[in-house]
Amino acid sequence: MDLENTDAPPARTIRVELGARAYDILIGPGLIASAGLEIALRLKGRRMAVVTDENVAPLYLPSLLESLSAQGIEATPIILPPGEKTKSFDHLVPVVESIIGARIERNDAVIALGGGVIGDLTGFAAGIVRRGSRFIQIPTSLLAQVDSSVGGKTGINSPQGKNLVGVFHQPDLVLADTSALDSLSPREFRAGYAEVAKYGLIDRPEFFTWLEAHWREVFAGGEARIEAIAASCAAKAEVVVADERENGRRALLNLGHTFGHALEAATAYDSARLVHGEGVSIGMVLAHRFSARMNLAGIEDAERVERHLRDVGLPTRIGEIPGPALQPERLMDAIAQDKKVKGGQLTFILTHGIGQSFIADDVPASEVLAFLTEQLDAKGATRA
Amino acid sequence: MDLENTDAPPARTIRVELGARAYDILIGPGLIASAGLEIALRLKGRRMAVVTDENVAPLYLPSLLESLSAQGIEATPIILPPGEKTKSFDHLVPVVESIIGARIERNDAVIALGGGVIGDLTGFAAGIVRRGSRFIQIPTSLLAQVDSSVGGKTGINSPQGKNLVGVFHQPDLVLADTSALDSLSPREFRAGYAEVAKYGLIDRPEFFTWLEAHWREVFAGGEARIEAIAASCAAKAEVVVADERENGRRALLNLGHTFGHALEAATAYDSARLVHGEGVSIGMVLAHRFSARMNLAGIEDAERVERHLRDVGLPTRIGEIPGPALQPERLMDAIAQDKKVKGGQLTFILTHGIGQSFIADDVPASEVLAFLTEQLDAKGATRA
Repeated sequence: MDLENTDAPPARTIRVELGARAYDILIGPGLIASAGLEIALRLKGRRMAVVTDENVAPLYLPSLLESLSAQGIEATPIILPPGEKTKSFDHLVPVVESIIGARIERNDAVIALGGGVIGDLTGFAAGIVRRGSRFIQIPTSLLAQVDSSVGGKTGINSPQGKNLVGVFHQPDLVLADTSALDSLSPREFRAGYAEVAKYGLIDRPEFFTWLEAHWREVFAGGEARIEAIAASCAAKAEVVVADERENGRRALLNLGHTFGHALEAATAYDSARLVHGEGVSIGMVLAHRFSARMNLAGIEDAERVERHLRDVGLPTRIGEIPGPALQPERLMDAIAQDKKVKGGQLTFILTHGIGQSFIADDVPASEVLAFLTEQLDAKGATRA
Repeated sequence: MDLENTDAPPARTIRVELGARAYDILIGPGLIASAGLEIALRLKGRRMAVVTDENVAPLYLPSLLESLSAQGIEATPIILPPGEKTKSFDHLVPVVESIIGARIERNDAVIALGGGVIGDLTGFAAGIVRRGSRFIQIPTSLLAQVDSSVGGKTGINSPQGKNLVGVFHQPDLVLADTSALDSLSPREFRAGYAEVAKYGLIDRPEFFTWLEAHWREVFAGGEARIEAIAASCAAKAEVVVADERENGRRALLNLGHTFGHALEAATAYDSARLVHGEGVSIGMVLAHRFSARMNLAGIEDAERVERHLRDVGLPTRIGEIPGPALQPERLMDAIAQDKKVKGGQLTFILTHGIGQSFIADDVPASEVLAFLTEQLDAKGATRA
């Protein structure tokens, strides 16, 4: 992979080699406007349901519908309110009924146009209509382009925790239109960038080093951004192919996520306080600091991770989360209900250093609690 | 397969060879009372949720809970109202939340104790909690023992049609306690028997001939009943192993079901008018009569099928359904919304004769409508 190649054609293709469920991820500018053609080249169906939200619809829905119509594809739009609270049974049920009402047949497809919330909810709906309908992801946020739209994890939240209800349902095609990222707020773009950095921290130290040198270009747009997204999708595709249903190695993708999910739960999924990528950013720093505390890695690696994430403008400490102070016991409760728990033991992704993450399934809860208590006591020193 | 062997041990085992998802079906008397032991032999988990209904709970729940408790398995019962209307999102959502609330972890399991409604709903809930939880079927109706508890099809109904929402989720174990069938009403037992006869009509003509000779013993209970259930489960397992996700041959299991589902939809799933097995009985006769009308099979085979199903007390004609007369156009609408439609073409399971069924995916809608109109016009002659 040549990370600095600027002569490449505008759209890159990453193939996710899952046998009968193999699919392409296309990455480049203008893919929403050419979606109809890309879909018509790959799918026989001529009837689609397009699920999107009220923020994304005015920006990209007309262009997508026009592109589908030009290929003779009849589309039924389904528009939902934006935000994490949409990932619930309350919104899933009418989406499922609308998809059935659109008379989508076996060769037709359900299209998700939006960020991670729309992709997760729509993928779940497609996965359960007629026990599995064809599904196309058109992610419009950086987070969705590099993470949630690839790999087949779909779902909604339960009052008892995030993503506790869902299915594995692979898309038939992913169209990551990098032009769509220009409409993101800086905060949203940064939140997605946390997942980009994660791929370097898991097992690609040279990618992390490249990001440290080139992150300003990635934020500015253009070829470096496309390159970073393609590298992230390729990294994720490799893990998904090795372990589609998360019986092993795929759990590495949860680096920073056990702490991150607990922070999201403890702040009641209030995006004014914390969005997913910010939770992951703090969670990755915590995972590196906890690894250092357990003498698994040097503290200088944790400090390097924190420096880079802080440079790009991401929060890196629990104390930076606005609002009432969080209690360590509340975080431990959320961790215990997290879905990566096996037989009462705590499972975490820990690290031996930058790009050397591993699955630890025997982490003592008492050590985690002591660590979180220290971190929260150190709150005053957060921005020192 | 020796259909008349009476020296076999009380519990038969059919293995469904689905690789990593392989599982056993145990068939015999007293399996609810020994369920704890059979489960403890196969699963490591010691926490289970048991989903059942208000009719089944007083009969078998205490015995099941005692048997689980004797093996140190802690069980959380979830009791639902009986009937087809329970197969809805309204009941699925609280079941999902209760399973999550019972803190079922990856080695634990969700148990369905009941008929097809409980099995389908519970399997769907297990299939979506944490993107797939372990699942045990303890079917208490004949229909569930020979059909719905085997093969991994799970789901609920939509206002727009039956089983339109669900997932493929294989059980980890099926315990078919034949003693439980003694509590069924004659009407319920007969309805399940329609699915037993179906396996003969699909591709086992010698089994159909055996049933014509021995159906009274099957209805009386004892060894012939166990033999018929084991033969049915073995027939279904063979089809499921060949085509787990119904991309081809598995569709043969829908013999009689396209007509049957349309009759159920047209009678608003009102069990006072028609239950599933009765719809299948009429549907199988219609499939044989329609095949004769299309010159694919002789009319004498249709008459032989009808004679046997009428002998056991099942309805065989649309006109036998009590209540307002059904309209052919209404039945066609229901058929068009049925999930076995591809690209606007009608797919039916038709036959060249007893045990010679095949998938026909190019059946002209006009022929079906003409046939149904004839059948409904002939209503007056129904019981002649």
